[in-house]
Amino acid sequence: MFALVVELRVKPEMLQRFLEAVEENSTASVRDEPGCLRFDVVQDNDDRHHLFFYEIYADEASFQEHRTAPHFASWRKAAEVCLEEDGGQRNVSCTTLFPRPYR
Amino acid sequence: MFALVVELRVKPEMLQRFLEAVEENSTASVRDEPGCLRFDVVQDNDDRHHLFFYEIYADEASFQEHRTAPHFASWRKAAEVCLEEDGGQRNVSCTTLFPRPYR
Repeated sequence: MFALVVELRVKPEMLQRFLEAVEENSTASVRDEPGCLRFDVVQDNDDRHHLFFYEIYADEASFQEHRTAPHFASWRKAAEVCLEEDGGQRNVSCTTLFPRPYR
Repeated sequence: MFALVVELRVKPEMLQRFLEAVEENSTASVRDEPGCLRFDVVQDNDDRHHLFFYEIYADEASFQEHRTAPHFASWRKAAEVCLEEDGGQRNVSCTTLFPRPYR
């Protein structure tokens, strides 16, 4: 399956607004997209402005579909104003290895 | 819940051995540890020697318990010979934010 690991650094004064956008996007993705199997958001215990998304899609086409959803557009708008301008977001496109089969 | 994001860089000639150790450790962790809820292994689509673990534990005590398991000792032994010596492993201790409640 297609996995996306996203590492994010949020401007300190923007954390609350960012988390609202992220909750909406992660919730809507799993609820409304049959191809989005998981969209977890975790926060660094040593730096609350440092977050990761862990997203799983049935395949890469499902991920491309995700990027056309209305909740994705809202999240991009929030990301533009909330993320650090230098190194605010790093995406790594991956494939699940284990567990096998993925569940 | 307690989450651990681990980023790994494997010596090219060691990938096969490393993946065997990782399959054993990730499978045994979820199977044998009631406090280990998820142990996913994903591989960068652009660099097969670049991997992530995404681990979820009921709480930090469950994670500390994980580090005393026999399969953890085997994995550490493999990691010592298989990972790049410089920047081979980065651990980030996190807390799950979404979905809420976590599932």
